[in-house]
Amino acid sequence: MIIIGEKINSTLKAVRPAIENYDAEVIKNLAKAQTDAGATYIDVNAGMFLHDEPERVQWLVETIQSAVSTPLCIDSPRATAIEAGCKYNKNGKPIINSLTDEKERYDEILPIVLKYNTGIVALCMDDNGMPEDAEGRIRIGERLINKLAKEGVKHEDIYIDPLVRPIGTGSHYGLAAIETIRTIKKNFPEVHIACGLSNVSFGLPNRKLINQTFLVAAIAAGMDGAILDPLDKKIMAFVYASEALTGADDFCVTYLEKFREGLLD
Amino acid sequence: MIIIGEKINSTLKAVRPAIENYDAEVIKNLAKAQTDAGATYIDVNAGMFLHDEPERVQWLVETIQSAVSTPLCIDSPRATAIEAGCKYNKNGKPIINSLTDEKERYDEILPIVLKYNTGIVALCMDDNGMPEDAEGRIRIGERLINKLAKEGVKHEDIYIDPLVRPIGTGSHYGLAAIETIRTIKKNFPEVHIACGLSNVSFGLPNRKLINQTFLVAAIAAGMDGAILDPLDKKIMAFVYASEALTGADDFCVTYLEKFREGLLD
Repeated sequence: MIIIGEKINSTLKAVRPAIENYDAEVIKNLAKAQTDAGATYIDVNAGMFLHDEPERVQWLVETIQSAVSTPLCIDSPRATAIEAGCKYNKNGKPIINSLTDEKERYDEILPIVLKYNTGIVALCMDDNGMPEDAEGRIRIGERLINKLAKEGVKHEDIYIDPLVRPIGTGSHYGLAAIETIRTIKKNFPEVHIACGLSNVSFGLPNRKLINQTFLVAAIAAGMDGAILDPLDKKIMAFVYASEALTGADDFCVTYLEKFREGLLD
Repeated sequence: MIIIGEKINSTLKAVRPAIENYDAEVIKNLAKAQTDAGATYIDVNAGMFLHDEPERVQWLVETIQSAVSTPLCIDSPRATAIEAGCKYNKNGKPIINSLTDEKERYDEILPIVLKYNTGIVALCMDDNGMPEDAEGRIRIGERLINKLAKEGVKHEDIYIDPLVRPIGTGSHYGLAAIETIRTIKKNFPEVHIACGLSNVSFGLPNRKLINQTFLVAAIAAGMDGAILDPLDKKIMAFVYASEALTGADDFCVTYLEKFREGLLD
């Protein structure tokens, strides 16, 4: 599983002041802790700082790189912030999070993907918005894959995000995301599928239970990446259990190792 | 979800003495507690009493019926015990657990299904044993459905058990079960899929985590029944979360109700 650690994010109340005050220790500790907990990438988001987002991203990237060599996931809808992240990145190939099939956003972000040869998270939405059903999501996802491939982006550098909507607002949204994952992974086995977990439970009580349930169902359907909090032991335990269940963890070696490290309780 | 409560089972160390000593209070309490916790059926198993299994089943059936009106699932590989259960059953249409496509067992159990007009759990195995892969399981499961339907058994009275084997002994067993569930449910939407959860984790540490993971993945693939312990609050919480996620729980009404009852913690 590709784990994109989501903790260094300006929308998180506990983290925002550290970015605001250039508190490097907090950021470095979050980078180290997420790496130790199994993050494959460290997400970098300064989206709340609308006036100086590129400079904030630059500072975050440089600060994180002074602590860990884990690759970065540069997270913004804005090209200027993403470009800053890629420019100062030194931790190997980064992922850009994200583009969509909205014309303006696609045309702005694609050149950065090509210039810096990055991975790219592609969201299943276009200028008509976010489709209600799996069919619409699959159509956009596969269109994005084909467009990106035509530009020279390798399948293995594409991370499709099916965009799960809150099941409390529509009972069909869970299955829509799961069906999208299954179909795209079947049709494009080298393309990765990665998405966030928390939208699905928005507005419901005991959100962690729903998030865990969605994680497992999505992995069983073929999802091989997730944007999550690797410091949440319980969600990571379900990552290991899901990999053991789906045969991604040969002979349950990792599962047994994590058990011995006390990480499955 | 069809929940078959598995607690009244002679293989359970804590329950066996109650059956041995005809301790009706223990059995009645287990029947009531499982019913209160959401069991759709109460499993009745006296399989450890090889010398007088039919009489033990009769006593269990009569004892349970004196406490609850929940339908029964008569659980034995032996026709004599199953026949006794069906004969003394008064709690509506029971399920027989189970037949297979092994010639001898099929020929013995089928007449009882037809005579008492019961539901039937059909295991995906035949005289060649339990297939290694999903393909083999699907072939047997669909053959059983077609044979039973030809005899007049309705699809909605058939419960296919894909037979999950321990993932610690073969990394492919989890996906084999999940693929079997998905394919059979797609091809025969009115047939139920129901299986036990504990085999999958046999030999591994922290078995409950693996069982919960398998439950979620199986429900997301189309499983609509499970043989489990409804007194295990955590596994039931995952049942409710899975139904909310897969759209089986319209507007998450049941999920919210269970939350208010304190059953999701």
